[in-house]
Amino acid sequence: MRAKPTRLRDKTICSVPVGKFVERVKDFHGATAPGVILGGYMVELAYRNLPKGDILFDALSETRTCLPDAIQLLTPCTIGNGWLKVLDLGKFALSLYDKSNGNGIRVFVDPAKLESFPEIRTWFFKLKTKKEQDLDVLLDEIHAGGSQVCGFMPVRLKPDIFAPRRHKTFRVCPICHESYPATDGDCCRACSGKTPYL
Amino acid sequence: MRAKPTRLRDKTICSVPVGKFVERVKDFHGATAPGVILGGYMVELAYRNLPKGDILFDALSETRTCLPDAIQLLTPCTIGNGWLKVLDLGKFALSLYDKSNGNGIRVFVDPAKLESFPEIRTWFFKLKTKKEQDLDVLLDEIHAGGSQVCGFMPVRLKPDIFAPRRHKTFRVCPICHESYPATDGDCCRACSGKTPYL
Repeated sequence: MRAKPTRLRDKTICSVPVGKFVERVKDFHGATAPGVILGGYMVELAYRNLPKGDILFDALSETRTCLPDAIQLLTPCTIGNGWLKVLDLGKFALSLYDKSNGNGIRVFVDPAKLESFPEIRTWFFKLKTKKEQDLDVLLDEIHAGGSQVCGFMPVRLKPDIFAPRRHKTFRVCPICHESYPATDGDCCRACSGKTPYL
Repeated sequence: MRAKPTRLRDKTICSVPVGKFVERVKDFHGATAPGVILGGYMVELAYRNLPKGDILFDALSETRTCLPDAIQLLTPCTIGNGWLKVLDLGKFALSLYDKSNGNGIRVFVDPAKLESFPEIRTWFFKLKTKKEQDLDVLLDEIHAGGSQVCGFMPVRLKPDIFAPRRHKTFRVCPICHESYPATDGDCCRACSGKTPYL
């Protein structure tokens, strides 16, 4: 019989009790996805290593899978408020950075550290199907390992990534009669061929 | 003296009492942003016009500003679970669509309908600075107008937009020693020049 990780009761992620974080993940994400739970520990590792003081930070996720939801649940950064950006490089890594200068901390899963965490390794490299893997065992290992499977490094974001991009003026598109950013040209980007619709 | 919109007490957005939705917006987005509130009425209009029945739907936002948060707060679709996609065309429009075939409803702000809503029009076309505009008056008009400022249309998404894209296998990048989708080639996209860091 596996010992239940009762110590979780006293554990917190970004000051949120782990149990409460897990509930929030279920509500928001729709399931206790391993990637969002591990993402929580990654956000906390980044937080802990940010310079102390009253800085305003933004977030970057290097994948659009799972991690953005951990960031949105644990930080003030959301997609809609613009403080979270997603650059989908397919890498399970995130950065929190000072929005005034782009200096921050990047946290990533370190494959070398996964050797001691066979369940996480199997899940991370998709070595078993979802059906074959025991979700409870995997989640226990994620909670036990926390950010031990991660590395972190100081980073400086390129200005074109961290600088805010604001549309100053909008005009009405002569083709679809909807509004669009004036800087896009004579008509909106959808009407100039970028429409996602058939 | 302006009459307070007391009828808001009985109003709901996607079955959520408006007051509760406004609270959620403040918690999640960090402020009662007009764009997220209007976005709520847009999500509801799309919902109401989806075919009845037990369909699983996904969401598309045509802007990364505000609208994604309304969708994430009112539907099961989030960035991290992959059911919400953002295609940043700078257009204040969204679609909810059947994830099995891409058929859905698109809702957009219709500039022609803004003539009767001067505060919304001024905000929407950024005709005043944030400081110059009275947020309370604007929000009252948004709640009073609801989805009256919007149009909607049936749409069919292009398969490359609605079809799920899953990474099947991951490997370790020989340069950074982190994992990346094997389909990206001999090294990860960050190491092949797409890194967001200096």
